[in-house]
Amino acid sequence: MTTQEQGAIPVPQVEERTPIPKQNLRVPGPTPIPSEVLAAQTNPMINHRGPEFAAIARRVTARLQYFFQTTSPVLTFPASGTGGQESAVVNLFSPGDHVVAITIGNFGNRLAKIAEAYGLNVTRIEFPWGQAADPASVEARLKELPSYKGVLLTHNETSTGVTNDLEALAALIRRLAPETLIVVDAVSSAGSIPLDMDRWDLDAVFTGSQKGWMTPPGIMMIAASPRAWEANKTARLPRFYFDWGPARKQLLEKGQHPTTPAVSVFYALDVALEMMLAEGREAIFARQQQAGDYVRGRVRAMGLQLFADHQNASNTVTAIKVPEGIDSKALLKKLREQDRIVFAGGQAHLEGKIFRIGHLGYFTEADLAQALDTLEQRLHEFGFKS
Amino acid sequence: MTTQEQGAIPVPQVEERTPIPKQNLRVPGPTPIPSEVLAAQTNPMINHRGPEFAAIARRVTARLQYFFQTTSPVLTFPASGTGGQESAVVNLFSPGDHVVAITIGNFGNRLAKIAEAYGLNVTRIEFPWGQAADPASVEARLKELPSYKGVLLTHNETSTGVTNDLEALAALIRRLAPETLIVVDAVSSAGSIPLDMDRWDLDAVFTGSQKGWMTPPGIMMIAASPRAWEANKTARLPRFYFDWGPARKQLLEKGQHPTTPAVSVFYALDVALEMMLAEGREAIFARQQQAGDYVRGRVRAMGLQLFADHQNASNTVTAIKVPEGIDSKALLKKLREQDRIVFAGGQAHLEGKIFRIGHLGYFTEADLAQALDTLEQRLHEFGFKS
Repeated sequence: MTTQEQGAIPVPQVEERTPIPKQNLRVPGPTPIPSEVLAAQTNPMINHRGPEFAAIARRVTARLQYFFQTTSPVLTFPASGTGGQESAVVNLFSPGDHVVAITIGNFGNRLAKIAEAYGLNVTRIEFPWGQAADPASVEARLKELPSYKGVLLTHNETSTGVTNDLEALAALIRRLAPETLIVVDAVSSAGSIPLDMDRWDLDAVFTGSQKGWMTPPGIMMIAASPRAWEANKTARLPRFYFDWGPARKQLLEKGQHPTTPAVSVFYALDVALEMMLAEGREAIFARQQQAGDYVRGRVRAMGLQLFADHQNASNTVTAIKVPEGIDSKALLKKLREQDRIVFAGGQAHLEGKIFRIGHLGYFTEADLAQALDTLEQRLHEFGFKS
Repeated sequence: MTTQEQGAIPVPQVEERTPIPKQNLRVPGPTPIPSEVLAAQTNPMINHRGPEFAAIARRVTARLQYFFQTTSPVLTFPASGTGGQESAVVNLFSPGDHVVAITIGNFGNRLAKIAEAYGLNVTRIEFPWGQAADPASVEARLKELPSYKGVLLTHNETSTGVTNDLEALAALIRRLAPETLIVVDAVSSAGSIPLDMDRWDLDAVFTGSQKGWMTPPGIMMIAASPRAWEANKTARLPRFYFDWGPARKQLLEKGQHPTTPAVSVFYALDVALEMMLAEGREAIFARQQQAGDYVRGRVRAMGLQLFADHQNASNTVTAIKVPEGIDSKALLKKLREQDRIVFAGGQAHLEGKIFRIGHLGYFTEADLAQALDTLEQRLHEFGFKS
């Protein structure tokens, strides 16, 4: 350091950097990352307007299309999953448009809130947290409503560990409103749970790199149907950063993005997608099903109660009711500090009422077994009697 | 891969992944990254709602405050620099607000375009590309205008290699309009060129991790003055993803971000800031000044013409006029493919008219010398006679 640092704001005194501990990270994203994927990030930077980046962008897009099961280009933006929610809203609608938000938890509510923040007229169809959207109730409610430009819904609700029957919901929405735009938050489902964008006739589907993709956070991926692209032409909500038009144009023409992409996260995603294809899409889905079954079985066997209704429990994240008399905050702290096992707490009004176990992306059954064995042991120390 | 891959979209046939070549990357961002910073990205993921991330977020923020020279918290968003432009606009203004955009190039124009996209009433004060904003002309123009809620300007215009005299411009704007909001795009200046947010009374300042910070792209940093925070209370433009309020609240209360931050890029930024402090802020500025002088000196000595006017030439990026009769696209291609030296072309109407050399972040004078030596040699092969 030079001896004469100028300026009114002095060099700050900060806590020194300490090593990142080895943990069994069992939150529903960011998920653990394979070494090969982490290592990809150490590649040197490249020009994001050059041929090396274009090759990566094209390869990543083609593979994402396969996982989304769509012929539409999958656009990427430097953003979190919430950026996908905002991107879908601002690219499809105009102020005052009537949209229906089917919400079963915190992230469904966030999507509805974004639509409201942008001046849409939002009708909510809400289900109690822990339950999936019941197709019959949705159908009955939709029939009562005046026409709606779009329906916003969550595939897998990360906050409650519930997976909606998206295929059934999309089919009934399409039957009632052939031209409505079906917007799907697939942040914690895409790549992990069957999702068939084109066959299910979905109009906008988005996800985030830090979920089933075994990649660090930083890239949001979104695809739009021909119907959505048509709607995009007349959608008048203000937008620039998340505007799809220039992103598609530059991707297809040059393998570029209008602004600077998250290059090192792209390196990671490129390798992760290669690993996912080596494992196979159906094999991943089967592994996720097995993981869901395993976690739910163990949780029930130790006398705990699942928060999600049985037939719609998620295969990527399991929410567990905090047993009466147990201080879940203290329990999670003990597990984190003593055992280096990191679970997620409940969100919003579920804080202290549930905790959540992530089982998506890169994991083995042994990781889940170790987490659950230790949870069981600690629960008894905390006075839990099944 | 399982033998029975289902779904209508088949596994795509893609170009195989190839190694990222060793290059002398001389574009104005992404910049080369120190090994230690690249390696930081291989740390395992952590819970972005846990204590490890909070420690990093707090340390990074405090250090960014020092480089911004502000007591205001520096917020971070998973985004590119353009996200900073949009974030400043949507957090400060309401539809129909009159703002002045002082533009000297492509990125100044982008900021004005974003303001227009969001329905602001934008008066442009434009200067020919290659020149800085002339304080006397700005003052004369501002005096003719009806009152304006904000003034948007670029500190260092990456597209033309020109640095505005931000201190002088801010002082005269403040003198004419004591309560106007001064919004500064410092994407390619902050951390590299003197910038004194509080002392110069700037209201919003933003930058991106891939510029002077020696960090991969993916994090946008933005700080707002007390005056800006006051304006934020009544600003009615729609916003959610880039909303400052929840970002500040969660940062100060918990060391968190409302959505999932780019964790691996944070690891990198944390180490990069540590290295920058070890070098010292004034030492970095001196090194940047020296690099600017060196590049300009060499460019002139080889008989090329600088695009920027002399006294405002940037110390982070140098734009050079393409000599008559030289095919700059072919020249840059040859340098990239044969010599592994990557320069940037011109943007918008300057495509083919200028090319640009980045010299910010992590570099040595030897890197610049090698790039310039080779450029000189190739130029002669392309028929250039000084």
